[in-house]
Amino acid sequence: MDFASVLERIRASGPRHRLDIGDPDLPPPPELLEALGRARDFRYGPPEGLPEFREAVAEVFGVEPGEVAAVAGGRLGLAALMWKFRRERLLTPRPFYPGYLEIAEVFGIGLGFVEAGVGWLPSFSERGVYVVNYPNNPTGVVLPRAKVRELVDVASFVISDEIYRDIVFAEFTSPAELSSSVAVVYSFSKVFSIPGLRIGAVVGPREVVKEVAKFNKATVNVPPTPVQRAVAEVIHILPRRRAEVSRAYAERARLAAETLKLKFVEPGGAFYIFPEVGDGDRCFEEALKRGVSVLPGGLYGSKSHVRIALVEEAPRLAEAFKALNEACAGGP
Amino acid sequence: MDFASVLERIRASGPRHRLDIGDPDLPPPPELLEALGRARDFRYGPPEGLPEFREAVAEVFGVEPGEVAAVAGGRLGLAALMWKFRRERLLTPRPFYPGYLEIAEVFGIGLGFVEAGVGWLPSFSERGVYVVNYPNNPTGVVLPRAKVRELVDVASFVISDEIYRDIVFAEFTSPAELSSSVAVVYSFSKVFSIPGLRIGAVVGPREVVKEVAKFNKATVNVPPTPVQRAVAEVIHILPRRRAEVSRAYAERARLAAETLKLKFVEPGGAFYIFPEVGDGDRCFEEALKRGVSVLPGGLYGSKSHVRIALVEEAPRLAEAFKALNEACAGGP
Repeated sequence: MDFASVLERIRASGPRHRLDIGDPDLPPPPELLEALGRARDFRYGPPEGLPEFREAVAEVFGVEPGEVAAVAGGRLGLAALMWKFRRERLLTPRPFYPGYLEIAEVFGIGLGFVEAGVGWLPSFSERGVYVVNYPNNPTGVVLPRAKVRELVDVASFVISDEIYRDIVFAEFTSPAELSSSVAVVYSFSKVFSIPGLRIGAVVGPREVVKEVAKFNKATVNVPPTPVQRAVAEVIHILPRRRAEVSRAYAERARLAAETLKLKFVEPGGAFYIFPEVGDGDRCFEEALKRGVSVLPGGLYGSKSHVRIALVEEAPRLAEAFKALNEACAGGP
Repeated sequence: MDFASVLERIRASGPRHRLDIGDPDLPPPPELLEALGRARDFRYGPPEGLPEFREAVAEVFGVEPGEVAAVAGGRLGLAALMWKFRRERLLTPRPFYPGYLEIAEVFGIGLGFVEAGVGWLPSFSERGVYVVNYPNNPTGVVLPRAKVRELVDVASFVISDEIYRDIVFAEFTSPAELSSSVAVVYSFSKVFSIPGLRIGAVVGPREVVKEVAKFNKATVNVPPTPVQRAVAEVIHILPRRRAEVSRAYAERARLAAETLKLKFVEPGGAFYIFPEVGDGDRCFEEALKRGVSVLPGGLYGSKSHVRIALVEEAPRLAEAFKALNEACAGGP
């Protein structure tokens, strides 16, 4: 089953618990809602983003505004970068985020895989341009610093998809801390719970940022300007918000570890767990029968797993976990 | 000079009258502002657009919702369609909208030109996939119905960029009225004065619409969902708004015809005029010296012209036209 068919199955079934797509359930910060209400300038802006947005993001990352391009969501940043490096050997760890395959398929870009080993940690030994995603979707793991070192030592360039970088419960090292041949894809979708607004950024070398701006111009033209203004205005709440969402999702991951009778690597960030269930498709179907939607691991390149998005509050999650224990762990 | 350098020149000069980029100055409809204030659901949506948005647009165009895909601005729809037909012979009339070249350049797509003749009317005789834009940017002309017939008879497919279809002062015929091998690219940017929000649609055959949705998934992922909701909610104001903006821009075009001592084809829609000035670059520079920014026709493939965007109210426009007469028509 491909992604669209799986979602169609889920919609048709109408489960009580939607733990499938990564749609954050925590409400957006009220400061951002107020700023959005005030952002009433709907004119065009430059393709690389508004100066105030680039400055705000640059300060967060400790770089210059010229090293930041606004993008209409992380996906657009990934597409711009994968397109830029389309003639190189592009590699990504498996299990993978299926969005990379969707981009590769539409644009006819080759994408090779590096198998993740014990604890979902890949061995980075092949030379190439890497697309990595830590904190990881679907496994939730983060790479220890030594692994990040191994990565940047072997990579000719790293596209570091860090859209979950604000949701961490373990030490997180960005490849950008260890190498300058890195472009970080960042997004406000997960930390601010605003995926429908499409706002993110690419942070990287100036020449890469310029090409992202060109890609913007050839696709979305201009990243949404009122959203850029609102985000720039409330960027100071990011550290507090980061702590809040990290705490909330960490508690849910803990609840999963305590309640679920399924084997999984404890996540170090993001809001997913990726338990081993024998047959991911069967677990998906059995869970759906019991009113819980998860995603079959086959979509992520690992058929013996399912991905569970921790996007409900604890009491509801506990109920869903009980159903999942019955559906996928052979009953209580 | 390329587009970016021209805009840089304009910004550095800080002219009193910005008649360069097509940023509509009429305020957005209050109903839409209110609907946007209420649209507080920021979750993901399907890549083809929300059902209510597709239904709203389908009703406007008299088609089925399955023949509509939401896009994050007209440009994204154009990119999706040009990408789809990248292996065909792609043709566009000259003067051209430079956005087509920006898309073609980034994605390595070949684009041929058909010269526009008297009254900016091209002869359509070569077989191919046409990208056309009527009401036209930069000339403002619309094609008479017989010309549209000539176009669809020779075209294997038409990508009809109709982002100015709501701003018309002459009879407008869409190629989609005469052929089913047409995809219309539509946008709410110009009619609702909201280019910074990035919302539009592709209306066309179902299989084309499906490919646009895939292109969405590989770029912006999801067209902005709260904007889709707000637009769907106020779609009923479109006929009235259309009449209002058409009247407003038609008056400005009339003022130009009465005041400007420059030769131009009277526009039938949109909000541009494209006068012949001898040397477009010189007129651009001389106008800028006098506090008015226009765009050199070279950007549109015609060096002897300039494009003037009618995006100021009449009294200010009259002042700008006076300066333009001095700058580009040899003075009073």
